Amino acid sequence: MNRVPDDGLVLVPGNSLITSTPEEGRALALTLARHTVHNIQPDLDILKGGRPNYSTDPDSIIRAAHVVAVEFATVAAANDYWRA
Amino acid sequence: MNRVPDDGLVLVPGNSLITSTPEEGRALALTLARHTVHNIQPDLDILKGGRPNYSTDPDSIIRAAHVVAVEFATVAAANDYWRA
Amino acid sequence: MNRVPDDGLVLVPGNSLITSTPEEGRALALTLARHTVHNIQPDLDILKGGRPNYSTDPDSIIRAAHVVAVEFATVAAANDYWRA
Amino acid sequence: MNRVPDDGLVLVPGNSLITSTPEEGRALALTLARHTVHNIQPDLDILKGGRPNYSTDPDSIIRAAHVVAVEFATVAAANDYWRA
Amino acid sequence: MNRVPDDGLVLVPGNSLITSTPEEGRALALTLARHTVHNIQPDLDILKGGRPNYSTDPDSIIRAAHVVAVEFATVAAANDYWRA
Amino acid sequence: MNRVPDDGLVLVPGNSLITSTPEEGRALALTLARHTVHNIQPDLDILKGGRPNYSTDPDSIIRAAHVVAVEFATVAAANDYWRA
Repeated sequence: MNRVPDDGLVLVPGNSLITSTPEEGRALALTLARHTVHNIQPDLDILKGGRPNYSTDPDSIIRAAHVVAVEFATVAAANDYWRA
Repeated sequence: MNRVPDDGLVLVPGNSLITSTPEEGRALALTLARHTVHNIQPDLDILKGGRPNYSTDPDSIIRAAHVVAVEFATVAAANDYWRA
Repeated sequence: MNRVPDDGLVLVPGNSLITSTPEEGRALALTLARHTVHNIQPDLDILKGGRPNYSTDPDSIIRAAHVVAVEFATVAAANDYWRA
Repeated sequence: MNRVPDDGLVLVPGNSLITSTPEEGRALALTLARHTVHNIQPDLDILKGGRPNYSTDPDSIIRAAHVVAVEFATVAAANDYWRA
Repeated sequence: MNRVPDDGLVLVPGNSLITSTPEEGRALALTLARHTVHNIQPDLDILKGGRPNYSTDPDSIIRAAHVVAVEFATVAAANDYWRA
Repeated sequence: MNRVPDDGLVLVPGNSLITSTPEEGRALALTLARHTVHNIQPDLDILKGGRPNYSTDPDSIIRAAHVVAVEFATVAAANDYWRA
C-alpha cells in the first residue's frame, strides 16, 4: 500500500483499504478518522485551538477511540482479517 | 457512478452505493451523512446558524466522524472493499 | 415494495426490508428510525413540543443521523446493496 | 415464534430470534432492548419514576432508538432479512 | 457451555461464545459487558458507590443497554443465530 | 500469538488478530482500545491525571466498555468466533 503525504483533502490516503499487516491496518483506521475530522474542520488553527481540552478529557478520547474501532472493523474485514 | 447535483432532498445522490475507488466511496459516506442532516433540518439558515459552535467543538466533530465511519462501513461492504 | 400509510403504530411500513433502489432503502431507514421514536413517545404533541430545540441543535441532529446510518446498514445488507 | 408473557426476568422472550415477518422482528428488537433495561433496573417504580423526563427529551428517545436499531440488525441477520 | 464462577478477573466466563440458547447467549452478553466494567474498575466499592445514580438515570441505563446490544450481536453471530 | 511488551507506540501488539481462545481475544480487544488511547494522548501523566474521575464515573466506564465491545466484534470475527 502506498501512502500519499498526509493531505487533509484526501479522504483515503493510498486510495486503498488493503494493508500488509494488522498494525498498518490500525494506522489506516486512525488516518481515516483524522482525515474525516480535517474534512469537517479544515482550519487547522481552529482544530488545534480546541485540542488541549480535547485530549485531556478522558470522555473525548474514548469517543475518538470508538471511531477508530469502527473504522478498524471495516479495514480488518477488507483485509479478511489478515488471516492467510 | 453518476453524481446528481447536491440536492438536499435526494438521500442517495446517484442512487447507487457502487463507486470506482475507496476515495469516492468515502466521499459518498460523507454525502450520505450530510443529506440525512439536510433531510432532518432542511432550513439551511438554521443549520448554518448552529454550525460555528458545532465545527469548533471537538466532541461534535468526533460525533460526526463516527457517523461517517458507520456509513463508510456500508459503502465499503457494498463495493466488496474494492478488493478486485 | 408497498408502503402503508405513515401509521406510528406500525414498526416496519410495508412489512419488508426489500426496496427497489438505494434511495428507497434510505427512505425506509429514516422511516424505521422515526417509527421507533413514535413507538417510544406516541404523543405527537409532546414529541413536537421537544422538536424546536432538537432540530436546531447540531449534536441532536448528528445523533439522529447516526441512528439512520445504523438502520441503513441493515436495509442495505437486506438488499444485497442493490448490486445486481 | 411463541412469545412468553412479558416477564422482565426473561431476556429473550420465546427464546428465539426467528420471527415470521420484519414487523415481528422489529417488535422483538424493541422487546430485547426493554428487557435489558428491566434486567439492569428491576424496580419498576424507580424506572417509571425516571420516565417522564426521559420520554420527553428528544436526545434520550434518539439514544433509545439507536439501541433498537442495533438489536434489529441482529434480529434481521438471524432471519436472513426475511428475503425468501 | 460451562460457566465459571463470576470472577471479575476473567473476561469471558467459560472461555467460549457458544451457548445452547438465545437466552443463554443474551445472559453471556450481559456478563461480557459487566466483566469489562469490573476490569476497568476492579474496586467494587467505588463501582457500587457510583451505582445508585447510575441505575436511576434512564440515559445511563440506555447507554448500558447499548453495550449489551453490541455484545449480543457478536454472541449471536458466533452461534449462527441459533438457527439450526 | 506473540504479545510484545505493552508499548504505547505499537497499535496491534503481536501484529495479529488471531488468538487461541476467546479469553485472549477479549484481552486483545481491551489492549487495542488502550493503545488507541495512548496513541491519541501519549503523555501518561496527563492520561493518569484524568483517570481518577474517569474510572469512578459509571457513564465513562460504560463508554469505554462500548469501545471494547466494538473491538471484540472484530477480533471475534477474525477468529471465526473460535468455533472449530
